[in-house]
Amino acid sequence: MTTTTNTRIDQLRSLLQAQNLDALAVVPGANLHYLAGLDFSTKLRQTTAIIPVSGTPVLVLPALELERAKSQVRGDMQIITWSDSEGPSAALARAADETNLAGKRIGIEQNVMRVYELRGLEAAAPGLEIIDATPILSAMRMTKDSAELAAMREAVRLIEQTLHATVSAMHIGMTEREVAEIWMNAIRATGCPPSFDVAVGSGPNGANPHHTNGERQLQDGDLVVMDGGIYYNGYASDITRTIAIGTPNAEALRVYELVLAANTAGRVACRPEATGDQIDQVARAIIEQGGYGPQFIHRTGHGLGMEIHEPPFIVGGSHEPLTPGMTFTVEPGIYIPGVVGVRIEDDMVITETGAESLTSFPRELISIT
Amino acid sequence: MTTTTNTRIDQLRSLLQAQNLDALAVVPGANLHYLAGLDFSTKLRQTTAIIPVSGTPVLVLPALELERAKSQVRGDMQIITWSDSEGPSAALARAADETNLAGKRIGIEQNVMRVYELRGLEAAAPGLEIIDATPILSAMRMTKDSAELAAMREAVRLIEQTLHATVSAMHIGMTEREVAEIWMNAIRATGCPPSFDVAVGSGPNGANPHHTNGERQLQDGDLVVMDGGIYYNGYASDITRTIAIGTPNAEALRVYELVLAANTAGRVACRPEATGDQIDQVARAIIEQGGYGPQFIHRTGHGLGMEIHEPPFIVGGSHEPLTPGMTFTVEPGIYIPGVVGVRIEDDMVITETGAESLTSFPRELISIT
Repeated sequence: MTTTTNTRIDQLRSLLQAQNLDALAVVPGANLHYLAGLDFSTKLRQTTAIIPVSGTPVLVLPALELERAKSQVRGDMQIITWSDSEGPSAALARAADETNLAGKRIGIEQNVMRVYELRGLEAAAPGLEIIDATPILSAMRMTKDSAELAAMREAVRLIEQTLHATVSAMHIGMTEREVAEIWMNAIRATGCPPSFDVAVGSGPNGANPHHTNGERQLQDGDLVVMDGGIYYNGYASDITRTIAIGTPNAEALRVYELVLAANTAGRVACRPEATGDQIDQVARAIIEQGGYGPQFIHRTGHGLGMEIHEPPFIVGGSHEPLTPGMTFTVEPGIYIPGVVGVRIEDDMVITETGAESLTSFPRELISIT
Repeated sequence: MTTTTNTRIDQLRSLLQAQNLDALAVVPGANLHYLAGLDFSTKLRQTTAIIPVSGTPVLVLPALELERAKSQVRGDMQIITWSDSEGPSAALARAADETNLAGKRIGIEQNVMRVYELRGLEAAAPGLEIIDATPILSAMRMTKDSAELAAMREAVRLIEQTLHATVSAMHIGMTEREVAEIWMNAIRATGCPPSFDVAVGSGPNGANPHHTNGERQLQDGDLVVMDGGIYYNGYASDITRTIAIGTPNAEALRVYELVLAANTAGRVACRPEATGDQIDQVARAIIEQGGYGPQFIHRTGHGLGMEIHEPPFIVGGSHEPLTPGMTFTVEPGIYIPGVVGVRIEDDMVITETGAESLTSFPRELISIT
C-alpha cells in the first residue's frame, strides 16, 4: 500500500488534537473539497468522511459516486460504499467501527452538515460528543496560498472584463433581464462558471439587495446596481458597481458619493491586525454621518475564496485580527426603499504591509445613455 | 388586520395535529416555498419559519431580506428581522416566545435543516422534542394538483424541444462540452432555468453516471448519455436519452436493448397501488436476467416536482402504494466502467386508471454521424 501525503489533513490533525478532538466528520462542500480533493455537491444520499487524528480516513459514499471519488481523492482514504437498496446505515456503522468512533469527541461543520447527516453519525457511533469545528476549518481556509491567490486574481480579471463588456452594451430602454443576460452570456463565454447569477437592480429595484432581474426598463436618472462573480479553478470573484443612466437627481448622486467614500475608507482601513469590526465601523461611520445609517442594512463585507461567503466577516463584533493572505469583500451600500440603491464592492487581500484590492474596475460614477 | 387564507398551511396544521406535533420549523427551500410562497435560497444567515398548530406563523428573517419576503409571502405571517451586527439569537428567542415553543414537540425537515439552524432553535426554546416531519411535507407535496401538473407538462415540452435541437446539431468530432453548451444555450433561449447542468457522457464516459462534460470528441461507435431538465414556473422536468454515433458494436446495442426493455417494463408497471419497490423490481429483473444486474448501480427512479429529487422514490424497500397525481422518473441504466453506459429516463404521472409518461421523446435508438 502506498501512502500519499496530504499536508492539509496533516495540518487538520494537529488542529484537532489541540482542541482535544478525536476526529472530524465532513460532508460534501468546500471543506471536503479543500481537505481531500472531493468536489461533490450536497445530495440526499449520505456522503460523509471521517478523519480521525490517527489512522486512515474513511469515506462513506453512495456506490454510484465511486468512480468519481477515486478519480478525485487526494491522500489515503478508505472508501465504504452503500447502494440505494441497502441505505447508508450499515456503511456508516462500519466506518464508525474502523475509526473507533463510539463515545468520542468529534468535530462537525455545523453550518454545512444537515440534521439527517448528524443523526446518521449519532446512530452509527453511540455516545458521541459533537463539537462545532467550523473555526478550525475556517482558520485553515482563510489564509490563501499563492496558488489560491493566483486563481482569485484570474477570477477577478475575468469578471471585470465581462462587466466592461456589459456596461458598454447597456442603453436606455433595455430591461434588467436583458442586461443580466448579456452579462451572463459574457461570463459563459469565458468558459468559467458564474459564482452566482448576476443581479441587476435599476432605479427603485436597486434598493432591494436581493432583487430578481425583472422587466423594468433602464431610464434616464436611474442608478443601476450590478453584482456578479466568476469561479476560476475553484476560487470566486465577487464585484458590484453602480452605474448611472443619464443624469441621476441630487439625492441619488449624494448617496453615490457617500457609498464611494465609505468603500474607500473601508479599503484603506484594511491592513494586518485590523479587525472586521474596525473596518465595518470605519465604513459605516461615513454613511451614518451622512444621515443614511439605517439604510446601510448589511455588513460591510464577507470572506471570499472557495465559497462566495466565508470567513472572515467584515461586521460589527468581529474582533479577530486580520492576517496576510486573508481575502474578503468591502461592499458598503445604501438602500432607500422605493427610491434608489447604491453598492460598491471590491475584493481585498491582506498583505504583509497593508492590503491590495484585487478588483480595479473604475469606482467613479460611470454614466451611460 | 386582514386574514389571508393559506389552504396549504391549514392542511399542514391538520397533519401536525394528527402526529401530536405542536409546530413545524421550516428553513429556506422547496417546503418553505410550497407552504408560504417564500422562494429563498439556503444561506448562512438563519431564516426559519415557525408554524404553530394555532396562531400566526412567525418568520425569523435577516433584515436585508424583508422587502423580498413581504413581496412573496402567502398567508398571514409575523416577520421578526435581525441585522448582521445583532445576529439571529434575539429574533429566534422572540419568535419562540410568540409561538410559546419551549418544551414543545416540533417537526423539522431533517434532510434540509442544517445543524446550526437546529442549534439556534434549541437555544431559543429549551426542552424541545425534535421530530423529523419530512414524511408530512412529502405527503403534501407528492400529489400534484392540476396547476402543478400543467407546469410540469410545459417543463417537459421545453426540455424535449431543446433536446431535439441539440441532437440535430450533434456530429462526429464535437466534444462533450460543445454538445453540452449547445443544449444549455437552447435551454436558456426558452427563458426558463435548467433544473441542473446538463450531462453529456460519451463512449466510456457514459459509464460514469456523474461524469463532468469534458473534451472527449464524439466518435464512430459511441453511445452518448444525455441528461437534462428545465424548471417551468417552479416545477422541474428531467429526461435522459442515449444517442448513437455511427454504428455501436454488438455489446453496446445489446445493452441499449436491455435498458430500453427495462424502461418500458418500468413504465407499464406504473399504476395506482403499485409501489416503488415493485416498479424497481420489474425494471431490474430485466437487466439482471440479461446478465448486467451488477452494472445497474442506482435506483430505478425518483420523485420529481419542485425538486429534481423528491419522494416517491422508485427503489427497493419502497412499499408505499402510489396514488393518482404522483410524479416521478423511470430511468434504468447499465454502466460498464471504461466501456459504455446507457440510461433512458422518462417522467411519469400516476393517473386514476394507470399512468402517463409526460415525456414522449423517441426511445428507439437514434444514430447520427
